[in-house]
Amino acid sequence: MTEKPLILVTNDDGIHAKGLRELVEVMHFFGEVVVISSEVSMSGKACGITVDQPLRVTPVEKIHGAPTWKSSGTPVDSVKLSFNNLFDRTPDYVVSGINHGSNSSISVIYSGTMGAAIEGSLHGVPSVGFSLDDFDSDADFSKAKIVAAKVFQSVLDNGLAPFTCLNVNIPKGKPRGIKVCRQTHGKWMEEFEKRTDPHGREYHWLAGHFRNFEENSDETDIHALRNNFVSVVPVSVDLTCYKTLDKLKNWTF
Amino acid sequence: MTEKPLILVTNDDGIHAKGLRELVEVMHFFGEVVVISSEVSMSGKACGITVDQPLRVTPVEKIHGAPTWKSSGTPVDSVKLSFNNLFDRTPDYVVSGINHGSNSSISVIYSGTMGAAIEGSLHGVPSVGFSLDDFDSDADFSKAKIVAAKVFQSVLDNGLAPFTCLNVNIPKGKPRGIKVCRQTHGKWMEEFEKRTDPHGREYHWLAGHFRNFEENSDETDIHALRNNFVSVVPVSVDLTCYKTLDKLKNWTF
Repeated sequence: MTEKPLILVTNDDGIHAKGLRELVEVMHFFGEVVVISSEVSMSGKACGITVDQPLRVTPVEKIHGAPTWKSSGTPVDSVKLSFNNLFDRTPDYVVSGINHGSNSSISVIYSGTMGAAIEGSLHGVPSVGFSLDDFDSDADFSKAKIVAAKVFQSVLDNGLAPFTCLNVNIPKGKPRGIKVCRQTHGKWMEEFEKRTDPHGREYHWLAGHFRNFEENSDETDIHALRNNFVSVVPVSVDLTCYKTLDKLKNWTF
Repeated sequence: MTEKPLILVTNDDGIHAKGLRELVEVMHFFGEVVVISSEVSMSGKACGITVDQPLRVTPVEKIHGAPTWKSSGTPVDSVKLSFNNLFDRTPDYVVSGINHGSNSSISVIYSGTMGAAIEGSLHGVPSVGFSLDDFDSDADFSKAKIVAAKVFQSVLDNGLAPFTCLNVNIPKGKPRGIKVCRQTHGKWMEEFEKRTDPHGREYHWLAGHFRNFEENSDETDIHALRNNFVSVVPVSVDLTCYKTLDKLKNWTF
């Protein structure tokens, strides 16, 4: 008898998030599922790792029958732990999400959901981050679950190049289809809100709006989402800017 | 009279780190310096941002005469704050470091030092992350300071393409020169140490060693460092894997 593949499910919204539970349900159709996530939200933790603190890992109540661990670390810590003797065998796939909120465009570099997917790909297994463009903690994931199943089936059918993962963003409502895209060139324009606490001390709270530097392109993930398509962006983390590399070689230091 | 450029100096080792102070000293030669960093180490915080907590920013004792702020946030938070009304004007340059320890190869995605430099570049100003390949808190930065001055002068002379920053890693000892490189394809092989605390509870501590997937290439940052050269890698954060993009377009979802 062939052993079922082991699928690690994680996220950055924490172990209690609805999106995590929904993704576990989907992944049961594809293999044996294990879950590891944090007790608290790890939104915005990017590829962060914990170097100055020890990590605690505790088994907790199963999610839809899948063995589940609670970790004190970041999403990337959780994936690293999963490949280091936490389970009887190492995961064959890593899926992360379904995130409450989009991780398109530049958000990919801040996202803990995508941090986990990237880390999975660095461990040499096909990895996918799923995000739904809806921040509601009780969002409707019914369509997103079908998308997750379709995309994951395609990953099984086609494989993924080593050290490459997928950033899958799903629009709210009923998607018109699935589009392969590139990351939109854009950034967050921050507008910190300055407030005063009950003790008279100032604090700042991160807020802002997104600015799209290529409104007219139809090849980007933001364009797909705005037109109610699911965006699928292949992601790798060679950050070398090759366009600049040759220019730089002419500099005299 | 022309106004001197405003140079923001930050790091991920915290406000008390020797490397930060050394970099402030260097930057005084190039313009007006302001400093913002955290009280505690933010090593491994990557491009992490603080979304679920308010941020505190407090003026503290000047470093080498430069106005200095202590932030409760990550390195990226600090840079974002600096471009949002924290100072009278926004920075013209962002420099981060000098980090205690290398940020070559894949470490770039985990590094708070590089997170800050990347964030600077997203705000449209030339940005550089400097790291010395020496973890000692009392490391000798005398050579690294000269390197920082040389590289920063080159940035002034040549400019940097928008949304591109530099990842500069400096070997321990006397460098043989400066090499423009690409990011080494490699990864960390983790070996979590499992220990038991005084109360009988298990904990895990991240450890590991680096694995270079391209030992034979002489174009990589690791190769430069191993041969006692300074490595300069241009960095941008379009994570789209263009090699995979076309293949993916043939998938049927």
